[in-house]
Amino acid sequence: MKATMKLLFALSLIPVSASCQTENNTVMQQANTNQNTSMLDDIHAVSPALEGYTKDRLFGDLWRRPDLSPRDRSIVTLAALIARNQTVQMTYYLNLALDNGVKPSEISEIITHLAFYSGWENAMSAVVSAKAVFRKRGIGPDQLPAAQVDLLPLNEDSEKQRATSVEQNFGTVAPGVVQYTTDVLFRDLWLRPGLAPRDRSLVTVSALIASGQVAQVGYHLNRAMDNGLTQKQASEVLTQLAFHAGWPNVFSALPVVKEVFEKRAK
Amino acid sequence: MKATMKLLFALSLIPVSASCQTENNTVMQQANTNQNTSMLDDIHAVSPALEGYTKDRLFGDLWRRPDLSPRDRSIVTLAALIARNQTVQMTYYLNLALDNGVKPSEISEIITHLAFYSGWENAMSAVVSAKAVFRKRGIGPDQLPAAQVDLLPLNEDSEKQRATSVEQNFGTVAPGVVQYTTDVLFRDLWLRPGLAPRDRSLVTVSALIASGQVAQVGYHLNRAMDNGLTQKQASEVLTQLAFHAGWPNVFSALPVVKEVFEKRAK
Amino acid sequence: MKATMKLLFALSLIPVSASCQTENNTVMQQANTNQNTSMLDDIHAVSPALEGYTKDRLFGDLWRRPDLSPRDRSIVTLAALIARNQTVQMTYYLNLALDNGVKPSEISEIITHLAFYSGWENAMSAVVSAKAVFRKRGIGPDQLPAAQVDLLPLNEDSEKQRATSVEQNFGTVAPGVVQYTTDVLFRDLWLRPGLAPRDRSLVTVSALIASGQVAQVGYHLNRAMDNGLTQKQASEVLTQLAFHAGWPNVFSALPVVKEVFEKRAK
Repeated sequence: MKATMKLLFALSLIPVSASCQTENNTVMQQANTNQNTSMLDDIHAVSPALEGYTKDRLFGDLWRRPDLSPRDRSIVTLAALIARNQTVQMTYYLNLALDNGVKPSEISEIITHLAFYSGWENAMSAVVSAKAVFRKRGIGPDQLPAAQVDLLPLNEDSEKQRATSVEQNFGTVAPGVVQYTTDVLFRDLWLRPGLAPRDRSLVTVSALIASGQVAQVGYHLNRAMDNGLTQKQASEVLTQLAFHAGWPNVFSALPVVKEVFEKRAK
Repeated sequence: MKATMKLLFALSLIPVSASCQTENNTVMQQANTNQNTSMLDDIHAVSPALEGYTKDRLFGDLWRRPDLSPRDRSIVTLAALIARNQTVQMTYYLNLALDNGVKPSEISEIITHLAFYSGWENAMSAVVSAKAVFRKRGIGPDQLPAAQVDLLPLNEDSEKQRATSVEQNFGTVAPGVVQYTTDVLFRDLWLRPGLAPRDRSLVTVSALIASGQVAQVGYHLNRAMDNGLTQKQASEVLTQLAFHAGWPNVFSALPVVKEVFEKRAK
Repeated sequence: MKATMKLLFALSLIPVSASCQTENNTVMQQANTNQNTSMLDDIHAVSPALEGYTKDRLFGDLWRRPDLSPRDRSIVTLAALIARNQTVQMTYYLNLALDNGVKPSEISEIITHLAFYSGWENAMSAVVSAKAVFRKRGIGPDQLPAAQVDLLPLNEDSEKQRATSVEQNFGTVAPGVVQYTTDVLFRDLWLRPGLAPRDRSLVTVSALIASGQVAQVGYHLNRAMDNGLTQKQASEVLTQLAFHAGWPNVFSALPVVKEVFEKRAK
């Protein structure tokens, strides 16, 4: 049984409330990694209240909600951490992602994808943490997608539409950006098979919302839902990001998400 | 006499100008912590100009301005650092906050509050620094607010109005976010007595402006002023944030702040 | 021959493609610093694909594009890293900047400039890295601009226009911000001769785009082009930032950039 599932199972046996703080703590110390225990000890030394919220609301509630699997929550959270260049908890959430069933090859692709969507140096920070985690777990390059792979088939119609629109808008303003967007992003990166298009979209949408990039959320949320993300899942992505990227980023994205949901319902 | 007050007092004895750089330096070395000296030495090795601005404009001028107390400036600055996930100077500004009269219990609540408003991992980064500062000063959990406390009374009318508006807008789009916003934020977190509502608002507004979250500034600035923040203080929050969160974030917030001031004047 | 020019020259001798990954790697190990090799080794352990993109697209292509010199690309990239508070690769890009012909005095002024435009603590993080790089290269304070220098002449007309507009808009809302903007920014910082006005504008525009500050891009891009930045260069700044600050930040800035280009063409 994976560490997190063990944690979730163990937590499910006890009522989640602050009155059982001691037992709760004991359970977490047994069930979860030493790193989690050390994290909770750190929080306790600064804010018993935040320790309570972390146990009861974050791990005891948010991560157990239905409509989005622990695996998907790990993908959303990793994307948020990389997009926001957060290193302190990266090792913990990389391990949690692997425990929750995200494959090493998928983590490899997530980091690569976000080099383009969150900036090269954000990916580099993630590389440092991931390298250590991979080494500790004996994950070698043989488990990672090769640089050159057979690409997924391109949807020529939809790509032509996208490329034409961007070319018309910005072709003379930023020819370099437009060229790379077509050649490297949509005719290469997005077609790499190591991460399903639905998951690639999930990563993109999560990173955009987590870093306050509202302007691109509409396009990419539609793409995500075209790629199979359900409305219930998209809604739970927002709940997950409220905690891991802060309430304001989610509230800034809500009007755009609402508009996408409403237009697709018609 | 607290270290910073000593610094401010010492600085007040000498004319603040670049012509007295040597004396100024001497005073700062006597009056302030070793960490400040080491910070200024670092800056000197890279930019004597920035060293000058730091002494003359930041510590010699900005932090001594009237209309916002050193304590409040410390709260604003801590909120900005946590919201922007800045760790390099966190230890320095945590110590400065304690010297300026921010209580350990208030720092504990500020970090907890910003877990929700700036994202969980930003709070975790602050926890690491705060734990070390608290340990060095012998601040134990007995000086920190408990996880469970008697909450401040709720303003049922204003909360009902807020909840109804959010429910109508986003209740079906993001039921999870809406539920947590009511249950955890406005009926729990905001009512914790360890941080006065006016200070909780000051933290929120500072974090929003410091991280470019313009969309929520209007609501929270009004709330802050309802909670007792004066217009002069709000204006000085902007001056403080210009230095500690950069000019562009402040100029992006200015139109919203202006609108709030004008509407409240009617 | 400078390290990077050596790298670029060496790379130009071999076809840039993934099929020559081994030779490519060998060349980079010979030509570039140990740090680059170690960076590529780290990436390889996590994502051979990202390693490929870094060699073929980033260093093998982007940095060699015409219309923007390697020196200017280094300035753009440093500004982006400082604005985004990225420390992991700061040492590498500081060394690359010096190799590409950015003077120590210019790096000193860039960091000072961004204390105001990206927040004081972002500059402090850069100071820590720059101090180590300067020491290792034997760059002492004698090579850095003094705190007090003879300022460039002020364009009184254009400054009067700017100051009047800001004063009318925000003079009563934020008198402190308005005062510092005039006294410290436009009548002091911007007139320091250690960084040419065109380069100071390049730094400012790059930092704004890299941190998603769209609202100020229009004013500062116009100022940059008034100061001598050509449209082709501005366009390549966007290409450079797509990689180093992420695609979304560039796409958010594109409509503003387009508008500036179109208005100036009339």
